[in-house]
Amino acid sequence: MFQVNLLLKSLNLIKLKPPINLIVRMSTYGFIEKGVPNTTNYRMFLTNSSVPISPFHDIPLLSDAANKIYNMVVEVPRWTNAKMEIATKEGLNPIKQDVKKDALRYVKNCFPHKGYIWNYGALPQTWEDPNHLDESTGCRGDNDPIDVCEIGDKVHPRGSVIQVKILGVFGLVDEGETDWKLIAIDVNDPLAKQLNNINDVETLKTGLLKATHEWFKIYKVPDGKPENKFAFDGKPKDKAFAENVIALTHEHWKKLITASPESNINTSGLDLRNVTIANSPYKIENPLTIVDSSPDLATPKEITDSEQVAIDKWYVVG
Amino acid sequence: MFQVNLLLKSLNLIKLKPPINLIVRMSTYGFIEKGVPNTTNYRMFLTNSSVPISPFHDIPLLSDAANKIYNMVVEVPRWTNAKMEIATKEGLNPIKQDVKKDALRYVKNCFPHKGYIWNYGALPQTWEDPNHLDESTGCRGDNDPIDVCEIGDKVHPRGSVIQVKILGVFGLVDEGETDWKLIAIDVNDPLAKQLNNINDVETLKTGLLKATHEWFKIYKVPDGKPENKFAFDGKPKDKAFAENVIALTHEHWKKLITASPESNINTSGLDLRNVTIANSPYKIENPLTIVDSSPDLATPKEITDSEQVAIDKWYVVG
Repeated sequence: MFQVNLLLKSLNLIKLKPPINLIVRMSTYGFIEKGVPNTTNYRMFLTNSSVPISPFHDIPLLSDAANKIYNMVVEVPRWTNAKMEIATKEGLNPIKQDVKKDALRYVKNCFPHKGYIWNYGALPQTWEDPNHLDESTGCRGDNDPIDVCEIGDKVHPRGSVIQVKILGVFGLVDEGETDWKLIAIDVNDPLAKQLNNINDVETLKTGLLKATHEWFKIYKVPDGKPENKFAFDGKPKDKAFAENVIALTHEHWKKLITASPESNINTSGLDLRNVTIANSPYKIENPLTIVDSSPDLATPKEITDSEQVAIDKWYVVG
Repeated sequence: MFQVNLLLKSLNLIKLKPPINLIVRMSTYGFIEKGVPNTTNYRMFLTNSSVPISPFHDIPLLSDAANKIYNMVVEVPRWTNAKMEIATKEGLNPIKQDVKKDALRYVKNCFPHKGYIWNYGALPQTWEDPNHLDESTGCRGDNDPIDVCEIGDKVHPRGSVIQVKILGVFGLVDEGETDWKLIAIDVNDPLAKQLNNINDVETLKTGLLKATHEWFKIYKVPDGKPENKFAFDGKPKDKAFAENVIALTHEHWKKLITASPESNINTSGLDLRNVTIANSPYKIENPLTIVDSSPDLATPKEITDSEQVAIDKWYVVG
């Protein structure tokens, strides 16, 4: 009994004085892999307490609303090249590799960069509405959840759900569509306490914002595409601006996920099935049937030497 | 018979007109791994036609003397961090990971770079003689074979023996020792024909020489060391200068490997045992006994999460 009391007391203490320096959350998120890795049929389904969920719809945008800590789904770990992304048009929106001209898409290495230079992913429960003309970029949304660049030390594996603070945002215009690129920091990063707005990034990680701008500008050039354009002369906007953008994309998502299929809303081919949104007409009861209909996980297809050379090639742009 | 004649004819044709665009050499080099990978007892012994050899002494410096094509031993593949190097003081000079303060050494990632930014290795049959005071750097040699940065597209695996053209050299002064850093290109690289001297590097791979200078200047700063110094104001010297440096280090090696153990030459703790140098007193007949005395290859030690975070950390220097 004494021990139990002690335990309750210590739990109480933790409750009274949250260890703000070290936010450790025991994540209940996991994943189920299906199909053949390194092929177009590979899928990574996310789970919560072993139940399949949609990373687009079923993970709360805010992990901690009071402290404005957001959930982020990691699609591409830092320094890797495979363009992995939430499949917005498939049931439960698993992570899969983007395909261009029937081939798996790898982002080219643009000197001096190696692959993606941050952990790259998306904020759940957001939607860059293609029906919405943004006044600052003059373009419509790209029909995806909003993108995030997480700039912490740790390389987070594909499919991780991590907690981040928002620091700012670049207004990228990618092939004529608004494509916000949020800058965020993992709350567990050693520098997280010191990084509170976009200017802190320049102070503590000098050169990273310039490199980020450059990266997004040129990353499709080796594929024969033009340089990307930016709103705001390519300068990142601050935290407050970024959080307003997030709030707007969250509103757009909310309208989408709760709209009646009979309404006039243009769902743009998105798969809205979810397991947690009580007032959504797309809520389903048996998500496992979707996962089960995907082919079983098999031995990865070996990447050939010539494919690897193509992935590893380093392009000097401009 | 007709077919055989045709075959002979075509072989003859190949002999008469070597395909200079595509130099493909069927390498007879291989390797034998020993010990536990990711620990201090891991060793990679090199072989030639399955016979153990020393990569320091038994691989000819020149692969093709007429065309000035050199052999290079790859120690560190591009974009990796483990400081792998020819163990100059061990029998047959296997490749092992450098150890500092009892820990395996990983080179830190210095923003914007990820690991080593070229395939890094050494030219066999060269020695930066610590007894020799170099007139251009004002320092003595670092007791190692001469280092090479191979700047081609392909990431070459550890232990590869590749053929390179020399393009130039940086005169690094690392902790007071002369440490030449050759710039070279894989003869099979798509740009090899166009890269013939140091200026071609700036033209075809703009920014790479500046990045190389910066990399060597700062790469030990995160480990608490001062910035490295350079001869020639940090500018690289050209191909002719570089080849003279190589010739000198080759002469120093030749003197070393053929010197009688009774002579006064200071071998600085190097292990000179070899299997191919006819006039070397260190020539041995049974190299396999050295390999056999090294513990068998075993399952790699898993790199822990915290070790991986330390390896992946990105440092902003200066």
